[in-house]
Amino acid sequence: MGKISATIALDAMSGDLGPTEIIRALRWGFKNLSLDCNIVLVGKEELLRRLLKKAKIDQDSRLSIVNASQVINMDEKPIQSIKQKKDSSLVRMVDLVKVGQCNAAVSCGNTGSLMAAGTLKLRPMAGLERPALASVIPSKDHHFVLIDAGANPTPKPEHIVHNAILGSRYCQVALNRDFPRVGLLSNGTEEGKGNELTQESYELLKKVDGIINFNGLVEGLQIFENKVDVIVCDGFTGNILLKGCESLFSMVKGFLKDEIEKKAIRKLGALFCKGALLEVKKQLNPDTYGGAPLLGLRGNILKAHGNSNQYAIMNAIRIASEIVTQDMNAMALADIEKANEIIKSKNKNS
Amino acid sequence: MGKISATIALDAMSGDLGPTEIIRALRWGFKNLSLDCNIVLVGKEELLRRLLKKAKIDQDSRLSIVNASQVINMDEKPIQSIKQKKDSSLVRMVDLVKVGQCNAAVSCGNTGSLMAAGTLKLRPMAGLERPALASVIPSKDHHFVLIDAGANPTPKPEHIVHNAILGSRYCQVALNRDFPRVGLLSNGTEEGKGNELTQESYELLKKVDGIINFNGLVEGLQIFENKVDVIVCDGFTGNILLKGCESLFSMVKGFLKDEIEKKAIRKLGALFCKGALLEVKKQLNPDTYGGAPLLGLRGNILKAHGNSNQYAIMNAIRIASEIVTQDMNAMALADIEKANEIIKSKNKNS
Repeated sequence: MGKISATIALDAMSGDLGPTEIIRALRWGFKNLSLDCNIVLVGKEELLRRLLKKAKIDQDSRLSIVNASQVINMDEKPIQSIKQKKDSSLVRMVDLVKVGQCNAAVSCGNTGSLMAAGTLKLRPMAGLERPALASVIPSKDHHFVLIDAGANPTPKPEHIVHNAILGSRYCQVALNRDFPRVGLLSNGTEEGKGNELTQESYELLKKVDGIINFNGLVEGLQIFENKVDVIVCDGFTGNILLKGCESLFSMVKGFLKDEIEKKAIRKLGALFCKGALLEVKKQLNPDTYGGAPLLGLRGNILKAHGNSNQYAIMNAIRIASEIVTQDMNAMALADIEKANEIIKSKNKNS
Repeated sequence: MGKISATIALDAMSGDLGPTEIIRALRWGFKNLSLDCNIVLVGKEELLRRLLKKAKIDQDSRLSIVNASQVINMDEKPIQSIKQKKDSSLVRMVDLVKVGQCNAAVSCGNTGSLMAAGTLKLRPMAGLERPALASVIPSKDHHFVLIDAGANPTPKPEHIVHNAILGSRYCQVALNRDFPRVGLLSNGTEEGKGNELTQESYELLKKVDGIINFNGLVEGLQIFENKVDVIVCDGFTGNILLKGCESLFSMVKGFLKDEIEKKAIRKLGALFCKGALLEVKKQLNPDTYGGAPLLGLRGNILKAHGNSNQYAIMNAIRIASEIVTQDMNAMALADIEKANEIIKSKNKNS
């Protein structure tokens, strides 16, 4: 029996670096990664044909093009943009997943528009109400998954359980960890800490331990300390934590750069320890962590960073392909069904 | 008319470095800072007398001692510890503020115990229900105040307004900024973002603009970008953000150190740019930002970092002294009264 091969729709007009970088990514990826997925480029056909030819990959049988005449810009309003630009690369790409022509869609475009298109066009999985955005957070030698990074700012405790399942399965596929440790994010690990949501979610997560590998509460100071593989929280807190950390990292980077440039001796020193600086930057740069998937839908949607370079783009495609070939959604679906049974019987008993 | 002089109760037994560091801080502070406050050392009298004598400051008229036979350790449970150790330095110190013998209390001890003692022993200010923990967050060239950093994880919209007022007045005193810009933390600044609390708080904050300098929403990516002077949020999110950033900063520091130590040439390079590394570390080290005050009580309680060194301890004392001499609480009280009037009339109209 052959392995399932994924067909991925790629928003070829998206990202700060535009279609040229997308085509560069494909050329590099086909040459250097053993990807066996098919890719449907969605965007302005004529332009894409020209770029593919120039890159000498126009004859590659894994590539095809679906024309889309419009482009959604980064600063457009989510709902409005997808309603007004029905022939945009982003909307057409999600349509291809909706009708089953593609198994997954990847875009470096407008996050809000992508989430709106995914949520409105693809229905949630059976047994689940709301999708969640997952993100791989880089750390020193132990990356982890944060879920929800912003799709659902006001979840119910059941949603938190579903997020824990989706995050676990995503962690298994994206970070290659078996039965990953799940922690519930709270403002302290002592008894009585947390808000109503974390307290109720905690009780439910304990009940479904076994379906997931629940490790209890995680507090702020432990986030980068390799306590767990998946951190689960509401989309409000998750979004602020993720972006706050990006903001801090970028400030520290700029601060160090400015201080080094103040004196010639420091610049020389920085040259000597360039390897160390680059390693830290490379390892922790959020841009290199390909895609943040919107999980829990009937179809796979991945958001890559707006400023993704060729490596980040191909990484997002690689993860999208793994999600499809490992049939991640089927595994999550089975877990959710089991968890819902437990939650239901618990509600009946209480 | 003479300036009001503050009398500060200092938990002399607290902190990872213990009473020796506290006494060292006092010796250094009296010599190098023009502090004109009185300090009441609370702790084991005999030990403290010996240490003061050794440091040759036992004759200083600004110092006195109140005996306390017990010590609350860092890992003790908040409520239990303050109930069981009524003669601890931490509890006695708060008592001194309660009876009016001291204007403010500073401790590097157990955060939970200090917050519990403050909240249970000192009543909230008139017009206010819940205290909030404020924290100065260091940034490149623009530190800011985060409030609430963890005292009240489930506030009502009115509490957010009170936090905005308390944070503004604290920012004025601690960071010397007039009419500081206030931002409400949310998961994006677009319309429709946020949860119920931020949406309702946003409306109230707009109404009290003028009492505070309200600058609208702030999202994660803007946190370290000098958009505002005070970031206001619920204590759940604030605690996770603050500690998450501390965790990230500490991970990055350790990572860079490990990478530098891998090769001799890198170590040499680091020596050349030591000035830059130290400057960044010094400027961003949360430990150097003295105290996090528990605001909104009838009395001033400041928590200094557990691992505070002499400079951090004296900085906390300096800020406590400023809070008293500038009569910060009276200013906040007047603002809160005005804000409550507006909120009340708004509720009547709606």
